[in-house]
Amino acid sequence: MSEKSLSAFIVPSNDPHFGEYIQDHYKCMEWLSGFNGSAGTLVVTLKDAALWTDSRYFVQAERQLAGSNIELKKIKMPGTESIDRWLANRLQKSSKVGVDANLFSVAEYHSLKEQLLPLELVMCGDPFDKIWEDRPAVYSNEIKYLDEKYSGESTSSKHKRVLKAIDYKDNFIYLVSVCDDIAWLCNIRGSDIEFNPLPLSYAAITKDSITLFVNKSAISAEASEKLKTNGVKVEDYNHFADFISNYPKDSVRIASREKISVKNSAAAQKNDAGFVADKQRGGVIANLKSKKNITEIEGFKKAMFLDSIAWIKMWIFLDENLIHGNKTVTEWDIARKLISFRTESKDYMGESFGPIAAFGKNGALPHYEPSERASETIGREGFLLVDTGGQYTFGTTDTTRTFALGNLTQEQRRDYTLVLKGMINLSMAKFPKGTRGASLDVLARGPICSAAKIYMHGTGHGIGHYLCVHEGPQSIRMEENPATLEPGMVMSNEPAVYEAGSYGIRIENTILCKEWVENQYGVFYQFETLTMIPIDTKAIERDILGKDAIEWLNNYHSSVYERLSPFLSESEKKWLSIKTANID
Amino acid sequence: MSEKSLSAFIVPSNDPHFGEYIQDHYKCMEWLSGFNGSAGTLVVTLKDAALWTDSRYFVQAERQLAGSNIELKKIKMPGTESIDRWLANRLQKSSKVGVDANLFSVAEYHSLKEQLLPLELVMCGDPFDKIWEDRPAVYSNEIKYLDEKYSGESTSSKHKRVLKAIDYKDNFIYLVSVCDDIAWLCNIRGSDIEFNPLPLSYAAITKDSITLFVNKSAISAEASEKLKTNGVKVEDYNHFADFISNYPKDSVRIASREKISVKNSAAAQKNDAGFVADKQRGGVIANLKSKKNITEIEGFKKAMFLDSIAWIKMWIFLDENLIHGNKTVTEWDIARKLISFRTESKDYMGESFGPIAAFGKNGALPHYEPSERASETIGREGFLLVDTGGQYTFGTTDTTRTFALGNLTQEQRRDYTLVLKGMINLSMAKFPKGTRGASLDVLARGPICSAAKIYMHGTGHGIGHYLCVHEGPQSIRMEENPATLEPGMVMSNEPAVYEAGSYGIRIENTILCKEWVENQYGVFYQFETLTMIPIDTKAIERDILGKDAIEWLNNYHSSVYERLSPFLSESEKKWLSIKTANID
Repeated sequence: MSEKSLSAFIVPSNDPHFGEYIQDHYKCMEWLSGFNGSAGTLVVTLKDAALWTDSRYFVQAERQLAGSNIELKKIKMPGTESIDRWLANRLQKSSKVGVDANLFSVAEYHSLKEQLLPLELVMCGDPFDKIWEDRPAVYSNEIKYLDEKYSGESTSSKHKRVLKAIDYKDNFIYLVSVCDDIAWLCNIRGSDIEFNPLPLSYAAITKDSITLFVNKSAISAEASEKLKTNGVKVEDYNHFADFISNYPKDSVRIASREKISVKNSAAAQKNDAGFVADKQRGGVIANLKSKKNITEIEGFKKAMFLDSIAWIKMWIFLDENLIHGNKTVTEWDIARKLISFRTESKDYMGESFGPIAAFGKNGALPHYEPSERASETIGREGFLLVDTGGQYTFGTTDTTRTFALGNLTQEQRRDYTLVLKGMINLSMAKFPKGTRGASLDVLARGPICSAAKIYMHGTGHGIGHYLCVHEGPQSIRMEENPATLEPGMVMSNEPAVYEAGSYGIRIENTILCKEWVENQYGVFYQFETLTMIPIDTKAIERDILGKDAIEWLNNYHSSVYERLSPFLSESEKKWLSIKTANID
Repeated sequence: MSEKSLSAFIVPSNDPHFGEYIQDHYKCMEWLSGFNGSAGTLVVTLKDAALWTDSRYFVQAERQLAGSNIELKKIKMPGTESIDRWLANRLQKSSKVGVDANLFSVAEYHSLKEQLLPLELVMCGDPFDKIWEDRPAVYSNEIKYLDEKYSGESTSSKHKRVLKAIDYKDNFIYLVSVCDDIAWLCNIRGSDIEFNPLPLSYAAITKDSITLFVNKSAISAEASEKLKTNGVKVEDYNHFADFISNYPKDSVRIASREKISVKNSAAAQKNDAGFVADKQRGGVIANLKSKKNITEIEGFKKAMFLDSIAWIKMWIFLDENLIHGNKTVTEWDIARKLISFRTESKDYMGESFGPIAAFGKNGALPHYEPSERASETIGREGFLLVDTGGQYTFGTTDTTRTFALGNLTQEQRRDYTLVLKGMINLSMAKFPKGTRGASLDVLARGPICSAAKIYMHGTGHGIGHYLCVHEGPQSIRMEENPATLEPGMVMSNEPAVYEAGSYGIRIENTILCKEWVENQYGVFYQFETLTMIPIDTKAIERDILGKDAIEWLNNYHSSVYERLSPFLSESEKKWLSIKTANID
């Protein structure tokens, strides 16, 4: 910092591709602070340091920052200073604040630049290359082709639809930094990023071609062949910046301002090449990718089926060993069991996120993950909350169940029933074309609010097709998001309640938006539930759940039994018939 | 137009105060086109003319424009040309398009200017002064003081809160054009605008004073005295433009860009005086005014009480003459009856909007208003939809009831029940502080959507306190509106269904947002229903309404009976006990 005359440096928690997970190489915030939550911003001056993170990580950050002299700044809590205020209180006017230009999007950079005034924001390189001695290198694993029997659409067909969505008359080059958008477009998958089946990549799209920037040596023979057939040129990952800065300047550069680094954007605009922002929120590819085709939907259903079998086996293990048995079972055991049952399928490609198995008060931490070293023994009262998902060659799963382990308080039974009622309310929604997720959120959130409780996260996120488990542009949450819900979108439906220090309840299914009817009033949509895992009925208060929701639950359970029982052993079948028995 | 070298002229349907209703003097669109809906834009070229209006007025506009050669342009319908497209297809580039600078807000003007490019938008005066021979003059009636026993807060106290909300350090002059904001601030009422108890006025607010621009001769002695006591200076209505253009230029001009005419804004910025936009959506005064104080809320309750008595007498009249009698009753009779029963109260100051009484298929037109000349005879089957409200010295009412007149189809009974269920769902909502109306809309709209039907208007609008029946900034509708619902806000709750050519159903109560509980999860709000008029139970299908809604309805009816029966005659009391009897 002194060398560059910087008075402060800002370290975010992302990489240049702006996804949710990053390689260890990019975990500079963690290396510097010790905090390893997935979202945070570390700000360092010559004297002080502070770290901003959101409510999911307050407890974890407090623990991990203890003794570090790094102040914890709780985002959205009353009285929390913003980064610009905190810096303004510490630095002299016109001091320089540095950022790695590779890690800030154009949109973030410009908004930060304005907020920091009169401090000066300065684009820098990556200082950690120099100071982080045993820094892990960026790695790349094999890049495989995702057969059209799984993707349902060729790259050349997707290319045409992307061009139509970009809708730009003159010559252009459309720049993509988001790895899952590129994986979707090129029908490739990799394993460069934990939980996300993605190669690290960039892409540049013109009317005539797609150029894919990856580690060329990592491409499988089949993928290489297929990319060629689909007119995809391949260049080395590290040549992206050169390529875009040397590209003929008569082609306008187009990119999503939220999804291109200010460094790459500057490279692309070398010699005053024109720049046009992608007008679609999240980018045109994310919008196309979010609407799954028939093949992808069928794949999701297959993935759900395989996942259900694993869940059922895990639940039987839990019943036999803990609830009806005398064995010691830990949270970690449950997470491992699910993985081992999933592994019985050859199409299982790994977890879709870090598995959550949380007993009792741990369930009140929405992102608690047990580890081999730190894992609670599960008791015989209260709740066990399990939230896990798998990556399968044909789809991605994400399910949460909360299991009643023994005695429950009246409040626990009521809360469980209200959360379930919310999940079912949203599952039953019928709504006009043009509806945004924010309009439907209250259906899931309302019941628990009627008990003066609330969960401080969204109700639903998009789910990728053998891609990222969190996918945009749509969402179902309180906050406004202009993206409308469209047929083919696959989303989570996960209301919850967290009674701090005591218990957590979350019930999550995966739902598909699809057309329902068209009449003189317009076009209406509805959801189809894709998940086929039984929901624990032990904690249900029938009076609170209500007639309509009970009917939905009974139908759901009948269909779960019908679809799964042919594939189960006699004893499993018997177990499932009990779990899916009608209530009321 | 030729004199000014204009190729087109745009005639909106508002006056310089941007309220919902206007004096006849400003009805230029109607004078020119024959269309008298409350919202429309007429565009005239030297050869053609077209009128844009929204779905509320499609039927009416078609009828009123028939034979006029004015094209009807249906806003938000697929394929409808925008004004700029329509003009671009007719005019040569750089042609001039004129508007009356007094009738376009700064925001509208600038957005239109951009849309019209390369056509040139030109600010003009009012051409109708010349061409409309018997044009009605602007008039002003007596300006009365609204006693603090009704308003609950003095002007000087409101002035202080307005200054705090403007939150501007240097010298400024805050310009207000909206008559209900001014009436609230100055605690005055008038009758210059139909249905709105308002004097035509402007105001200019500084740290030290309020200057009110009205017809000085119309001010009552009491109002004059009280304005003086509260430090309000009075200037003539017509001196506003001069005053603001000659005001010392070291005071920055502040105004809401949506609520000041481009003409007045230009006058205020003469000699390059600075201009700052009011950052609060709808303006700081509208935001303060929307949160009613205890006195205002008590006033609303009194107004609701008086209105209930009138409604009950009207309903008894309907029962005796039509349903149990053999008389001919028209829609107009019902509207007149309600007015005559309201008039029995000395505090009744007139209707709060044009009364709606719509039988059968007329009910499917959301804004149908019967007149003495055009009014249907009410039959003995289907529904009668009645939507009316009164202005009282202490509050404003707005209620809709739909009465079952005889035989109903199964579809009619289901639709009635679903609309009622939606109204009740919203009434029962509990929600966290910070919730926007758009988040709650689905509670009211969802049930009718579950039958693949929808109403194309909002569910709820703010209601003024002895002011405008439609008041911002909050709303409860599908469209995003960043205004949060706050304690003290009084709103309508009016889901509906319109089966074109057949029937309409709308049920509307008035609800008050208030605090419910505060706990470790935060602060929660709920609604209190202010309306005390029975809801017709004849068309209810109990199974569809459901247990929770039935319980709400029974409680509502018990409380209606309890609060009203002491003020009714024995026979009325008996009638009410039947109407409010528990169902189920």
